[in-house]
Amino acid sequence: MKQRSFGSDNHSGVHPLILKAIERANEGYCFGYGEDDYTESVLSEIETLLGGNCKALFVLNGTGANVVSLASFLKPFSTVLAPSCAHIIEDECGAVERFSSCRITALPQEGGKVRPETVKEFLRFGDQHKVQPIILSISQPTEFETLYSVEEIRALADLMHSSGGYIHVDGSRISNAAAAMNLSVKQLTADLGVDVLSFGGTKNGMLIGEAVVVFDLKKNKEMAQNLAYIRKQATQLYSKNRFIAAQFEEYLKDGLYLKMAAHSNSMAKYLESRLRASSAMQKGVYFTQNVDTNGVYISLAPLSDGQLETLRQKYIFYVWRENIKEVRLMCSFRTTTEDIDCFVEDLEKILG
Amino acid sequence: MKQRSFGSDNHSGVHPLILKAIERANEGYCFGYGEDDYTESVLSEIETLLGGNCKALFVLNGTGANVVSLASFLKPFSTVLAPSCAHIIEDECGAVERFSSCRITALPQEGGKVRPETVKEFLRFGDQHKVQPIILSISQPTEFETLYSVEEIRALADLMHSSGGYIHVDGSRISNAAAAMNLSVKQLTADLGVDVLSFGGTKNGMLIGEAVVVFDLKKNKEMAQNLAYIRKQATQLYSKNRFIAAQFEEYLKDGLYLKMAAHSNSMAKYLESRLRASSAMQKGVYFTQNVDTNGVYISLAPLSDGQLETLRQKYIFYVWRENIKEVRLMCSFRTTTEDIDCFVEDLEKILG
Amino acid sequence: MKQRSFGSDNHSGVHPLILKAIERANEGYCFGYGEDDYTESVLSEIETLLGGNCKALFVLNGTGANVVSLASFLKPFSTVLAPSCAHIIEDECGAVERFSSCRITALPQEGGKVRPETVKEFLRFGDQHKVQPIILSISQPTEFETLYSVEEIRALADLMHSSGGYIHVDGSRISNAAAAMNLSVKQLTADLGVDVLSFGGTKNGMLIGEAVVVFDLKKNKEMAQNLAYIRKQATQLYSKNRFIAAQFEEYLKDGLYLKMAAHSNSMAKYLESRLRASSAMQKGVYFTQNVDTNGVYISLAPLSDGQLETLRQKYIFYVWRENIKEVRLMCSFRTTTEDIDCFVEDLEKILG
Amino acid sequence: MKQRSFGSDNHSGVHPLILKAIERANEGYCFGYGEDDYTESVLSEIETLLGGNCKALFVLNGTGANVVSLASFLKPFSTVLAPSCAHIIEDECGAVERFSSCRITALPQEGGKVRPETVKEFLRFGDQHKVQPIILSISQPTEFETLYSVEEIRALADLMHSSGGYIHVDGSRISNAAAAMNLSVKQLTADLGVDVLSFGGTKNGMLIGEAVVVFDLKKNKEMAQNLAYIRKQATQLYSKNRFIAAQFEEYLKDGLYLKMAAHSNSMAKYLESRLRASSAMQKGVYFTQNVDTNGVYISLAPLSDGQLETLRQKYIFYVWRENIKEVRLMCSFRTTTEDIDCFVEDLEKILG
Repeated sequence: MKQRSFGSDNHSGVHPLILKAIERANEGYCFGYGEDDYTESVLSEIETLLGGNCKALFVLNGTGANVVSLASFLKPFSTVLAPSCAHIIEDECGAVERFSSCRITALPQEGGKVRPETVKEFLRFGDQHKVQPIILSISQPTEFETLYSVEEIRALADLMHSSGGYIHVDGSRISNAAAAMNLSVKQLTADLGVDVLSFGGTKNGMLIGEAVVVFDLKKNKEMAQNLAYIRKQATQLYSKNRFIAAQFEEYLKDGLYLKMAAHSNSMAKYLESRLRASSAMQKGVYFTQNVDTNGVYISLAPLSDGQLETLRQKYIFYVWRENIKEVRLMCSFRTTTEDIDCFVEDLEKILG
Repeated sequence: MKQRSFGSDNHSGVHPLILKAIERANEGYCFGYGEDDYTESVLSEIETLLGGNCKALFVLNGTGANVVSLASFLKPFSTVLAPSCAHIIEDECGAVERFSSCRITALPQEGGKVRPETVKEFLRFGDQHKVQPIILSISQPTEFETLYSVEEIRALADLMHSSGGYIHVDGSRISNAAAAMNLSVKQLTADLGVDVLSFGGTKNGMLIGEAVVVFDLKKNKEMAQNLAYIRKQATQLYSKNRFIAAQFEEYLKDGLYLKMAAHSNSMAKYLESRLRASSAMQKGVYFTQNVDTNGVYISLAPLSDGQLETLRQKYIFYVWRENIKEVRLMCSFRTTTEDIDCFVEDLEKILG
Repeated sequence: MKQRSFGSDNHSGVHPLILKAIERANEGYCFGYGEDDYTESVLSEIETLLGGNCKALFVLNGTGANVVSLASFLKPFSTVLAPSCAHIIEDECGAVERFSSCRITALPQEGGKVRPETVKEFLRFGDQHKVQPIILSISQPTEFETLYSVEEIRALADLMHSSGGYIHVDGSRISNAAAAMNLSVKQLTADLGVDVLSFGGTKNGMLIGEAVVVFDLKKNKEMAQNLAYIRKQATQLYSKNRFIAAQFEEYLKDGLYLKMAAHSNSMAKYLESRLRASSAMQKGVYFTQNVDTNGVYISLAPLSDGQLETLRQKYIFYVWRENIKEVRLMCSFRTTTEDIDCFVEDLEKILG
Repeated sequence: MKQRSFGSDNHSGVHPLILKAIERANEGYCFGYGEDDYTESVLSEIETLLGGNCKALFVLNGTGANVVSLASFLKPFSTVLAPSCAHIIEDECGAVERFSSCRITALPQEGGKVRPETVKEFLRFGDQHKVQPIILSISQPTEFETLYSVEEIRALADLMHSSGGYIHVDGSRISNAAAAMNLSVKQLTADLGVDVLSFGGTKNGMLIGEAVVVFDLKKNKEMAQNLAYIRKQATQLYSKNRFIAAQFEEYLKDGLYLKMAAHSNSMAKYLESRLRASSAMQKGVYFTQNVDTNGVYISLAPLSDGQLETLRQKYIFYVWRENIKEVRLMCSFRTTTEDIDCFVEDLEKILG
């Protein structure tokens, strides 16, 4: 495309080091379907990074990671609890329901986050006429790229555990959370009681690949054992699995995943500061969400439809809420200060 | 791995031209989820190649291609008919059933092929107590890499159509069939009345990617319209879709897909001829399937368990039927005559 | 139980005439699974009653009727729209989702009713990441036994049809609606554009049995054809089907269904009037829903927990919203004015 | 119907005592959905009858009983093993697959029975590409009304348990087995290691109703706990449950269920002996299955199509295998010696 894109971190393609790693892995023969030593060793590396008491396996994409993660914990009459804005509700065309035949119950959210008090109201058990809540799925960062604090996640995990339930983290951008909070992925998951994680790669500079990680192998032993079958059944087993292993090896090496995420986050911060300092703010542009990681949400209400269109001819971004012309501006490992400078300047120009 | 592999065409990695194409596609920003012009144009190319009266879209892997293909044609009470050795029965951990909740009815097969007379016996309709057959799924080449003739496929298609049903071709190795029969993929599908095709890429030198193609858009209009939703729901939508497009563009360019397939096939033929000429035949090694494309099936019954083990230390291959020590030897775009010469010589040596 | 029950119309058992009809049907041999002339003739009678352009078949219970009705209209990526209080959401333990693997989208409701403006907001099509709305399911009377007007139903039907969708009526108490509105069931369904109806029997004095009716056989031809298979698959086919036929024959004869419903409704009206005239109203008891059919909803907020308990020792009823002590009082074909007089007098006594 | 029916035990309607019990239960109000003391007490009675270490609950029909039984034991990637003639395969329109999304693997059978050696071949575990066997479902008596010996059932149960699996008995006619073998239902299930039973009522003189029983509550604790939710989700929860309780109470009282079954069995024996003594045997009629309970299978090969038609004008029965004109003749609690005498005489007459 000719435009600069703030549309999605997916628009940015692949980090060159990741491509090189794929190329290197393309030597000689290798067992398929993850049954090679290479895959095993990279998975071990991930498990070590996340504290050791966990089981990881590779899947192809974020929707797949969520389906495999959740399906491993569900019974027929279970329901998944999730904030109403969750990716599994809004953006996966019913994949979780299709695979599991279970309901996802949409919970009220604020800033992408669900609060323990809200979850509590939905934790009703024992009525044979009702689906039974078993797992809470949250995104960290949230679907608005805001962040739960460690205390908030721990409180949600404790709440779910207290009723015999579980907590899943959709971490398609977990690296952005880790970078922003200056915490390790382990500190954001294993240490807080998270039971299962969708550990993202694709949105953060990989070509393709995510990992599913089940924690607390004593408690979640059976779920960990079932992962491989559920992955295959969910069409998420990759025959030439060495190429995901190679990417993840490079991704973790020297903290590349954190470096890319930190860059994305810092670009969002830079965009935020440029906007705050710009004349656009005086003219009525305002922030609709906190800028915690790599997403910036602003209302472009002052722009006429035509002006918005003019801006979109040079920049790709998506409108979130049409009534207030709220747009989402995503930064990625590829975003440059120049991209941002141009955008802000053009916005100012259009606003006159 | 240190061994030479006849284990699977998946063991061979990626053709260098394909990797280069991925690299080239990694420039600039690009829309995600297949909503980019590039993806559109490569899909058009595929549709043109297959005769024009069809709708193609990309998916991630073979199981996904089969799930999306079949689910588009099923009603709740439908059953898929397939030979008992079908990949969807034997090798996909129930993915089709999980997604569709429909039964696959296993039909008796011979040499991987199902015959019209057999299918006919299962075409019973109208009893409310029975699942209703709606689509026949065959693999071309078959799961034993043998080939249906065009007449055979046409007869099966006609039979299914005569009762208002459909026919699916699992073409994870359709290029091998095309190369072996000196026919185009169109001649093997659209021209024979095939309704939906899983068009393979990964097994034939691509990094990742397959296409689903629905034919006869007048008859199968609704199925074609539904493909995109079913793909997403089946977790088969790839966010950075341009990288599949790039691979397929290269795959089709100058007939690379046919060249790779022809090479694999010719290696299998070479292996067959070397074996036929070898002393192993006198000692009781025999062929258990015709060598039609890139797979060679032989019984290594004369070998003791220890001798078999010795052979496996140098070569990767899988045992199909243990009782007769039947093994499958797969050739790929990467297989060399040297691989084969060594194998046959070692086999002869072991047999003494 | 020793108490008088306002708990549910299900608590009332079976009308004696219905039992007699079952007894009469128990003569001689009869084909099973609805394949008998008797079943055929009673179904014809129902179809005639509903205008002729429809296909009816018997099922066992209300949840089954809803599952069969909805599943006949769904594709894999479809979503059912329904008010958040819908029986299919709140009271069926996820049966629709389990059978269909489709999502039910919960819509904001008021007084049990969903409005066209609300539905309209959810009628978004064409985004491959989103489930696609295809059928609206409403209850008439609603889950609070209130009524949609004919204009309201027609508007909802028109709205759904305008986008190629459908409308389902959960009519487990449709006879109560018909009796209250002085309209035929046909006037409440076929004449308003309803596509499929769960026609209730069990809640209104039958032993067991409901009917599913698909209307507009030109448009919904395929759905009508598929009903029998879906019924069997949904475990709703009854082997000794003549006994449902016998009940429905009696149910329709001389309008027994309307007589029973009218009685239930009049008892609810009588309860309403007795309450309005009672001292309880001055003491803070108030109505929380309109009394349109056979349910009466009041807040017993003035009662202490102990007083409520005292009342419950003599009368069965369920608490709907705990915070305001809202209770539901259901009347049935068996409810007597004496039941009601006693209840109101005891309530007054307890309130002192 | 005007004919005498040997078509199915379902054709026979309801035992008068059962109808009387329903009538008696129709007094006063009663809680719905099985939450009444009456239901509880009859379930206790069943549990006591079956040895105490089990959990029973009522469902509506045989397909429902099988779905609830099996679904309670399945994981997503599980497969049910069953003889190819099983009711769940041949006669339930894919209900188990629809509800569970799991495959049923059809095993070779002889005389309706599957042998341990056969089952053993299918007990393959650990390959991520394959569905994993977890439960074996057998029918006792079999689908041809033949009987497994207690040793055979125990061997199958032991085999399944030895690999961590389970065994289900489809006992829609378990009373016939008990009566024929002079054993209690407990001796046929709990004592042999059966994990879950579909305990039939409808086919043996009840109006409607079956029970699902999970045994060995220490091992199968979770399955027992989940039954109620799965029943509701499978549309098998009956609102006016007292009427199933009343039937089962009567069914068990003074061994009515065994008396009815014994009568059915003795009628089949009488039919067998009359046939053996008849001239039809000389003319080429022969038995195709053992007569163990209430079904008689004979080949009417000597009859022309026209002669068969003549016979069918007076008697209802179904053709099982068309090629040899094999027919099934079912006896029920209602069958009389006169029915049989007439049939045999007419058969002789037709054969001339």
